[in-house]
Amino acid sequence: MAIRVTVWNENLHEQENKIVASVYPDGIHGAIVTALNGDAGISASAATLQEPEHGLTEEKLAETDVLFWWGHKAHGDVSDQVVERVCNAVWSGMGMVFLHSAHFAKPFKRLMGGPCNLTWREAGERERLWVTSRNHPITAGLPTHFELENEEMYGEPFGVPEPLETVFLSWFSGGEAFRSGLTYKRGAGNIFYFRPGHETYPTYHDQNVQRVLLNAAKWAYNPAPRLSDPNVAPNVPVTEALEPIEERGPRLHQDGEEGYR
Amino acid sequence: MAIRVTVWNENLHEQENKIVASVYPDGIHGAIVTALNGDAGISASAATLQEPEHGLTEEKLAETDVLFWWGHKAHGDVSDQVVERVCNAVWSGMGMVFLHSAHFAKPFKRLMGGPCNLTWREAGERERLWVTSRNHPITAGLPTHFELENEEMYGEPFGVPEPLETVFLSWFSGGEAFRSGLTYKRGAGNIFYFRPGHETYPTYHDQNVQRVLLNAAKWAYNPAPRLSDPNVAPNVPVTEALEPIEERGPRLHQDGEEGYR
Amino acid sequence: MAIRVTVWNENLHEQENKIVASVYPDGIHGAIVTALNGDAGISASAATLQEPEHGLTEEKLAETDVLFWWGHKAHGDVSDQVVERVCNAVWSGMGMVFLHSAHFAKPFKRLMGGPCNLTWREAGERERLWVTSRNHPITAGLPTHFELENEEMYGEPFGVPEPLETVFLSWFSGGEAFRSGLTYKRGAGNIFYFRPGHETYPTYHDQNVQRVLLNAAKWAYNPAPRLSDPNVAPNVPVTEALEPIEERGPRLHQDGEEGYR
Amino acid sequence: MAIRVTVWNENLHEQENKIVASVYPDGIHGAIVTALNGDAGISASAATLQEPEHGLTEEKLAETDVLFWWGHKAHGDVSDQVVERVCNAVWSGMGMVFLHSAHFAKPFKRLMGGPCNLTWREAGERERLWVTSRNHPITAGLPTHFELENEEMYGEPFGVPEPLETVFLSWFSGGEAFRSGLTYKRGAGNIFYFRPGHETYPTYHDQNVQRVLLNAAKWAYNPAPRLSDPNVAPNVPVTEALEPIEERGPRLHQDGEEGYR
Repeated sequence: MAIRVTVWNENLHEQENKIVASVYPDGIHGAIVTALNGDAGISASAATLQEPEHGLTEEKLAETDVLFWWGHKAHGDVSDQVVERVCNAVWSGMGMVFLHSAHFAKPFKRLMGGPCNLTWREAGERERLWVTSRNHPITAGLPTHFELENEEMYGEPFGVPEPLETVFLSWFSGGEAFRSGLTYKRGAGNIFYFRPGHETYPTYHDQNVQRVLLNAAKWAYNPAPRLSDPNVAPNVPVTEALEPIEERGPRLHQDGEEGYR
Repeated sequence: MAIRVTVWNENLHEQENKIVASVYPDGIHGAIVTALNGDAGISASAATLQEPEHGLTEEKLAETDVLFWWGHKAHGDVSDQVVERVCNAVWSGMGMVFLHSAHFAKPFKRLMGGPCNLTWREAGERERLWVTSRNHPITAGLPTHFELENEEMYGEPFGVPEPLETVFLSWFSGGEAFRSGLTYKRGAGNIFYFRPGHETYPTYHDQNVQRVLLNAAKWAYNPAPRLSDPNVAPNVPVTEALEPIEERGPRLHQDGEEGYR
Repeated sequence: MAIRVTVWNENLHEQENKIVASVYPDGIHGAIVTALNGDAGISASAATLQEPEHGLTEEKLAETDVLFWWGHKAHGDVSDQVVERVCNAVWSGMGMVFLHSAHFAKPFKRLMGGPCNLTWREAGERERLWVTSRNHPITAGLPTHFELENEEMYGEPFGVPEPLETVFLSWFSGGEAFRSGLTYKRGAGNIFYFRPGHETYPTYHDQNVQRVLLNAAKWAYNPAPRLSDPNVAPNVPVTEALEPIEERGPRLHQDGEEGYR
Repeated sequence: MAIRVTVWNENLHEQENKIVASVYPDGIHGAIVTALNGDAGISASAATLQEPEHGLTEEKLAETDVLFWWGHKAHGDVSDQVVERVCNAVWSGMGMVFLHSAHFAKPFKRLMGGPCNLTWREAGERERLWVTSRNHPITAGLPTHFELENEEMYGEPFGVPEPLETVFLSWFSGGEAFRSGLTYKRGAGNIFYFRPGHETYPTYHDQNVQRVLLNAAKWAYNPAPRLSDPNVAPNVPVTEALEPIEERGPRLHQDGEEGYR
């Protein structure tokens, strides 16, 4: 069965800016959905900020194996309820891929636990990405490096936790270097951050970038059944202890009580 | 100069429960403050939920090198504003030590980005902690293992991200094992989670536990000046690029503009 | 195409000890090969210390996607040439699973870079394994914990580097806890260490253990083409630099020279 | 008491090459020793390949808190016995800092467990190092970035394991990026790899580089007593088990027996 990917986009620049609209006539989400659907193993569709509940209802998330996220100018417009829902889906096992300016998206900041900040410059300079982790699934089919002739620069320090693995580094013409591909796990969910993708450049039409997105979808996908409640903290009564023990000492909790939260 | 530690406690069980009050007549915070002040290199004081702004004003945090956190039944009563303030202090370089049931404290969940859940049993069973990272600063002066005759059990899976280092494992009489000492870094701040410390048992009077707390305060302390704004994401104009580049391609942002958040 | 697994065993206890021979009449390697071949996606065969080049020729390794390793009393009899060959295969992309007493096997020590030591006790005590990483591929189909009624104890500190992920913890009747499932990457190769498997107990006949081994084979398998030379350190001449630069300053090396090793 | 640092150098280029001799009239080791001794908290001395046992006797290592290592053309001339001795000292708690071309030094390869390879170009191009880990002790007193006008280029993929933390990234004029500062722990010992330092350039006279070396010495130093035997794997007899257990099942080992290695 194909991996079900939902590509979420705030979908504003495409509506408000002629340049972005001309680069992405179907929206950034449209370009990514088309690219992903070019692989028989993936079934991708889109969701946008403008839809009810931003297109991310409980039902939609339950049918999403991997969620891609692109946002920039409207991070603050994403409802906290949807953010909580998305985080719970990740903790339950949904994969997630954060793109470019989503470094400041609410769910990314929430899942990272850090400030997620960086330096930046919009000058259409050259970016060159280098593979740092040999034969990592996310680099399948890629050369050792590839270039994007025009990109926004992001510079270090990048305010994220140490990743499980650093998969790409970027070199920029203006003199900066950046950790551009980082993997994480939160709860049962796999997370990948991928740097490129400024809205005024045709980054998501680039074949190497599309290859990364395809690989990332497959890497982030976890075939295990989604956890029904990723936040459960069950009490294990003395009578059900795996080794015979007797209750000792004073107690705070009563039998059958829920723990505090 | 001594490391300035603030020990935060919700301070409720000590007021409401006779057993806890008898074990910790000066409160859990009082016991920890006393233990830490036994070391000439540390200057510890307390803050509690009941104080204005929970005792954690901007001024107090600015004068705190390392913040300890104990909470259990009133996680929800901690104001979101204080949580945000605490996280910003950590990202700026303040060290932080989370104790026992603080696994569900708001700032811990916020800094971890995961569900932070676990299984539990309050039966006064034996816990034995094993050092897993040889000569780690947090284990200085400890034997290879030590016991707490009565403790609450916490069981895996513990819903936290992979740590930088696993420092302790716990063994429980009832049959569980747990990762009991975990290190993290978020922004510029060092974080340590330490499992033991159920309020009905005299855990914080134990000498080995006190040794861990002392070591953790010293480990988490970062002598570097606190960052003035841990969330800053500065634009680097083309004219200030470190390598000479010319602006190319279309732009979204105007000169001098702040980036989106 | 099926994943090609080679199960290597020193195959001595089975020949020399009646108890081991009765528990594993086809050898530990035989039991594991049979278990793995029960999955249609795996094609497993064995290799042993006694074969020429220990059964691990260049050709054999080139046809091995994942190598399992069990050794105990004859670590020192494994030729250094074969160890180097195995390490090069791992660095080129071959997966590897080290079992139980292989913690002291030459290739494990060589790939870990640490002492790999631990404490131990052979008393047939109960071991209970706990899953620590929710929905990790290596835990697919497993309960949250499972028991082995008779096992050798291994205790901390385990002298290995911090893993990419801790997948299992073990609890032992005698009072120890241990990190029993650890993942690593070395060069392009995935590595998994799995603790259970003392030769006098029927551990490899246990269904949960067999499930772990199956999962580990699939996890460690990397479909990417094997690197032709994992140790290559190519010179990039100035004339082939990706950005135009001019040679400056004094030189040590001559054109076309190999670097030092 | 001052941290005792030994700076090891193969000390060949300085003897054989006029350029290197003019840049480092006291040898690379001499320059580093002088720089480190500028800090009151450090007491540094040198050891070289040419001395008996390369200047690294058991006695010398026992009196060394942190060992620096610079080698290039004579990696193969370092005796395996000394390499084993150095690794044992690290596992016992000695800190170690590997510099530049020491990426291919025998002890580095031995401690990493990987191929440790990279790409390279000797063209005197500009290197710019970026701090990636805010307020890391190794970056104390450094700006967010600093430049070395002439350096050898090293490019990714760098064949080392994922580090505990990535502390620096490098940008090169010719178009490459590299992970230039990486921390590890092996056994009880802290390890830092720092990229810059080609012998024909005055890198070790640079104030920022000297600051990194000073910081690295302090970071790598572990005040805990050195382990007497980092490879010990003690048997814990049933009679000394921490929980009362009875021996069960068949045995392979006899009472008081050493385990296999």
